[in-house]
Amino acid sequence: MQLGFAMLCAGSVRAKNTMNIMLTNVLDAAAGGLFYYLFGFAFAWGGPSNGFIGRHFFGLKEIPSNSFDYSNFLYQWAFAIAAAGITSGSIAERTQFVAYLIYSSFLTGFVYPVVSHWFWSPDGWASPGNSNLLFGSGVIDFAGSGVVHMVGGIAGFYGALIEGPRIGRFDHTGRSVALRGHSASLVVLGTFLLWFGWYGFNPGSFNKILITYDGATGGYYGQWSAVGRTAVTTTLAGCTAALTTLFGKRILSGHWNVTDVCNGLLGGFAAITAGCSVVEPWAAIICGFVAALVLIGCNMLAEKFKYDDPLEAAQLHGGCGAWGIIFTALFAKGEFVDQVYPGIPGRPHGLFMGGGGKLLGAHVIQILVIIGWVSATMGPLFYILHRFKLLRISSEDEMAGMDLTRHGGFAYYHEEDSKLGMQMRRIEPTSST
Amino acid sequence: MQLGFAMLCAGSVRAKNTMNIMLTNVLDAAAGGLFYYLFGFAFAWGGPSNGFIGRHFFGLKEIPSNSFDYSNFLYQWAFAIAAAGITSGSIAERTQFVAYLIYSSFLTGFVYPVVSHWFWSPDGWASPGNSNLLFGSGVIDFAGSGVVHMVGGIAGFYGALIEGPRIGRFDHTGRSVALRGHSASLVVLGTFLLWFGWYGFNPGSFNKILITYDGATGGYYGQWSAVGRTAVTTTLAGCTAALTTLFGKRILSGHWNVTDVCNGLLGGFAAITAGCSVVEPWAAIICGFVAALVLIGCNMLAEKFKYDDPLEAAQLHGGCGAWGIIFTALFAKGEFVDQVYPGIPGRPHGLFMGGGGKLLGAHVIQILVIIGWVSATMGPLFYILHRFKLLRISSEDEMAGMDLTRHGGFAYYHEEDSKLGMQMRRIEPTSST
Amino acid sequence: MQLGFAMLCAGSVRAKNTMNIMLTNVLDAAAGGLFYYLFGFAFAWGGPSNGFIGRHFFGLKEIPSNSFDYSNFLYQWAFAIAAAGITSGSIAERTQFVAYLIYSSFLTGFVYPVVSHWFWSPDGWASPGNSNLLFGSGVIDFAGSGVVHMVGGIAGFYGALIEGPRIGRFDHTGRSVALRGHSASLVVLGTFLLWFGWYGFNPGSFNKILITYDGATGGYYGQWSAVGRTAVTTTLAGCTAALTTLFGKRILSGHWNVTDVCNGLLGGFAAITAGCSVVEPWAAIICGFVAALVLIGCNMLAEKFKYDDPLEAAQLHGGCGAWGIIFTALFAKGEFVDQVYPGIPGRPHGLFMGGGGKLLGAHVIQILVIIGWVSATMGPLFYILHRFKLLRISSEDEMAGMDLTRHGGFAYYHEEDSKLGMQMRRIEPTSST
Repeated sequence: MQLGFAMLCAGSVRAKNTMNIMLTNVLDAAAGGLFYYLFGFAFAWGGPSNGFIGRHFFGLKEIPSNSFDYSNFLYQWAFAIAAAGITSGSIAERTQFVAYLIYSSFLTGFVYPVVSHWFWSPDGWASPGNSNLLFGSGVIDFAGSGVVHMVGGIAGFYGALIEGPRIGRFDHTGRSVALRGHSASLVVLGTFLLWFGWYGFNPGSFNKILITYDGATGGYYGQWSAVGRTAVTTTLAGCTAALTTLFGKRILSGHWNVTDVCNGLLGGFAAITAGCSVVEPWAAIICGFVAALVLIGCNMLAEKFKYDDPLEAAQLHGGCGAWGIIFTALFAKGEFVDQVYPGIPGRPHGLFMGGGGKLLGAHVIQILVIIGWVSATMGPLFYILHRFKLLRISSEDEMAGMDLTRHGGFAYYHEEDSKLGMQMRRIEPTSST
Repeated sequence: MQLGFAMLCAGSVRAKNTMNIMLTNVLDAAAGGLFYYLFGFAFAWGGPSNGFIGRHFFGLKEIPSNSFDYSNFLYQWAFAIAAAGITSGSIAERTQFVAYLIYSSFLTGFVYPVVSHWFWSPDGWASPGNSNLLFGSGVIDFAGSGVVHMVGGIAGFYGALIEGPRIGRFDHTGRSVALRGHSASLVVLGTFLLWFGWYGFNPGSFNKILITYDGATGGYYGQWSAVGRTAVTTTLAGCTAALTTLFGKRILSGHWNVTDVCNGLLGGFAAITAGCSVVEPWAAIICGFVAALVLIGCNMLAEKFKYDDPLEAAQLHGGCGAWGIIFTALFAKGEFVDQVYPGIPGRPHGLFMGGGGKLLGAHVIQILVIIGWVSATMGPLFYILHRFKLLRISSEDEMAGMDLTRHGGFAYYHEEDSKLGMQMRRIEPTSST
Repeated sequence: MQLGFAMLCAGSVRAKNTMNIMLTNVLDAAAGGLFYYLFGFAFAWGGPSNGFIGRHFFGLKEIPSNSFDYSNFLYQWAFAIAAAGITSGSIAERTQFVAYLIYSSFLTGFVYPVVSHWFWSPDGWASPGNSNLLFGSGVIDFAGSGVVHMVGGIAGFYGALIEGPRIGRFDHTGRSVALRGHSASLVVLGTFLLWFGWYGFNPGSFNKILITYDGATGGYYGQWSAVGRTAVTTTLAGCTAALTTLFGKRILSGHWNVTDVCNGLLGGFAAITAGCSVVEPWAAIICGFVAALVLIGCNMLAEKFKYDDPLEAAQLHGGCGAWGIIFTALFAKGEFVDQVYPGIPGRPHGLFMGGGGKLLGAHVIQILVIIGWVSATMGPLFYILHRFKLLRISSEDEMAGMDLTRHGGFAYYHEEDSKLGMQMRRIEPTSST
């Protein structure tokens, strides 16, 4: 029921936010759509298969099948391009167009689908629906703190690391120079669109679960309370993280900074994504609070090591995503776990909720495995692009994009605004004559 | 069914519009979310209780209960932050950041919830679901012309009144100077997003009604015709108000003014909100026509009394909201009232529809009570903030924000654009050397 | 179920995109809403009637009836204002305000409804639900490649043709001068909003079909697979068209051009609209590929004949829409046609799918008839407006709007940005003193 809408909403909205980063992301979505259609969906969901990679449904062949319909494809496609969108944030402002096409095809066609197979497909070796549960538990990554956010964030980390910081991001003495975004309005617009989109991803994920584990449409109605709970935990984690960031940054820097607050909000969302369906609302507040601290900490580390990520994507999605996975292992409530993942009563649940350490073990494994897999795939890819001079734009182009800013005193423009920048630059000669 | 989506849509979209007013509203939504979670929902819906204030469900304890689920919370939360968003429009451009946090916490955590308890909770003294109906009728404020719009508008009125007009809004001879908004594009974008959001609020309100009065999901399907009717009346009222404003302003001022048209459209929506589910489509056209006149009249009054409301929020939501309440008491159709508020056949309905004057009596009471309650709470709050110098920003800050505008000949910038303003200002020295 | 939301979404979102074209389109939507309410819906759907025009439901009288409810009106209204929005793109930047009001009232109140009656109403002479099927087949224009896109595109063609090109679009030697849009950001935002909206129009069209042909709500659930398929074909056609445009333009012009890619994407959507529910996903890829070529070809023709259409609306919606109709007649799969248009097993279907040429015949007729009808109505209307000097703004006004641009080197501004333009122009004198 919910399918048609929630999922597509989420897809487009997420993509729309990426517009704030780079126009090229129109193509991220388009290329991602084709590659996920051709390969990705098959690698992720093509069961029956082994635990590591799917092998049916290439080009949607045999769809609709008993367990999958077109709607599943669309929903999963939205997740896939979300992951690619996260990565694009890390490498913004200094990356060649062709690099976007290559990395996003590879990420949505292969890297991401394999991870989603492991943790979400019933055949996946660490899935909570596998007949042979990892540590008798499997990983509970409901809407993808690990599968989507960590994958996108770590991929972005390698991209940004290999490209190096933008020109001017750290001055010759190594001091950090804030390169502020050009439009706080667009940041807030993007944040609200994502906020809205997250309600598609998190509560919307029930769709998948139900089809995967229940099969019976009749059972669908009984979970509305869980859907509502998911939306509430999502909301509270985000709000708490936003307020925590607000006051935290105020103490640290003496300013009320709205774009930081937006990032804090998104960090809270990224963290709650894994456990949104299986924790109590009060736990979501803890989740958001810690997520804000994690994000602040990661940003301090990034600054210290001169790592430049224009959208803090690696810190936000990687860092807060990882925290979300741990959080779920600590606070998942048994009753909710049984409700959301039915069939096996008395599953392991959160350590602090009396559910033992098995879930925590599985989740630590998940974090390590995701880091390893993305490092082993996207790291070399970005390195190869780098060696073949396909990754970074020329420093002339990069400076030219920033030309106006040196004139005007500003140090940073989003690509999509270079046009606006040019407008203004061209006014100058006129007005100085 | 509709819940997940319609409600959250509405919430985010509404919030997004507030972005056009002030970036600080990200925090309105975040702080409002927390306070409504902690206190607001309990005060509004925590029954069984007395007729004046609820007393259960603090921090969502005991949720889900028999009558409420998480989804109800989310839907109501969207309404709550909508009310706070309206208020923020009235005090835009001259208000301290901390004042936003304080008033929006108080409004969403206490003032608004109490009003919604009175008119919407089955326990409320003036609710149409109360066992002891006010005037044998109760108040029919379906989606909140009074509960949401008047509350937000009157709160904004006190804020704007106590702060006084923006510097430069009236010149030293007392002549009114239009401080035009910086971007008609954003106004139109915001208007369309709200238009879209209103379909979440108005037709979406059936959710609440059904859960409150029916309890049976089976009855849900039977009301789709009423849901559709609600969307149609909403559309027609808005369209009529927009066109009326267009031609009205053309006659008055000789210009076709698009931002006025946008406000007219929203005024039509605010007015139809109370009666959207219980009036005929043709009545909605009357509603929109009068709403446009009410808005024009209120704006003339505001100008005369040198009341400065950057977004016309008090006039639009207060004035048109009050008209909407009266309109409902005049045009509510008996058949529709019985359909939407089942259980008591032959309820009092619109005076002009042969339904007697009881509904009108109840609605006049509603208007007076809302004015009294908001005056008694938000008035003092804003006054205290004013006395403690927490309300208005320093005139230096206010002028600085307008610095560019004096250079450039423009007289008005939204806060969120000061950054853009700074860009352009910084171009100047460069270009004049 | 889906109705309330999907349809309204689509309506507003579509309208919102038109904002990128012209602020006046707030009024397009408002005037269109009223005229469609008063006349349009009656002409389109007011059966029982003859095959040419409906005759019931003026002002929604007798609604809800057995076959129609308010929701149908709203959904159809969204389509009607979409057609008017397409037309407004072609005549952007040089058209008087009053001309917008007149043409959009006429188009949404009469021209468009009559076409939709022919092809969509069960009484229509070429409808697939008519008891006396055209060529034993009827026209399969599922979500309106012809009914919506061709109508809007051809209407726009006459408007743009009669107005002539914008000043400066072709220089005195007749060479084409690109008048670039002012903000690629807004183009991308609009594109994504439309992308999102299209999921309302295409998969959302099932609503209509089901109510029209089934009547039974019970049958609703069985078509979810078809709804999903529709969303998948829509996605793939758009993505393919975007990528084809990207590489095609790269070969032709040597640049990666993002706004062209956006138009390509939309062209793919416009083309798949007719057949989205009855073709295989792989066929959608062909559809998108050819649509991109059609759009490139139409744009070359337009340039050659000095036809100036600021949004390429006639080329995109007219050209790709016509291709979509032919495409459907070639690739509609028999099984899917029977599923979507039940009741008559073994209907004619796509020529290349072994379905014979009857569908192709009907579709060629559709294209010719739409061209003829719109030419016979909108052509004279625009010509009369032109003769009475109500169509084009004065060349002074047109130049004034472009004043800044000559200063700044840019040659083109959307109306809504003239305000921003003025800001910047006013900076100049200040900064040069």
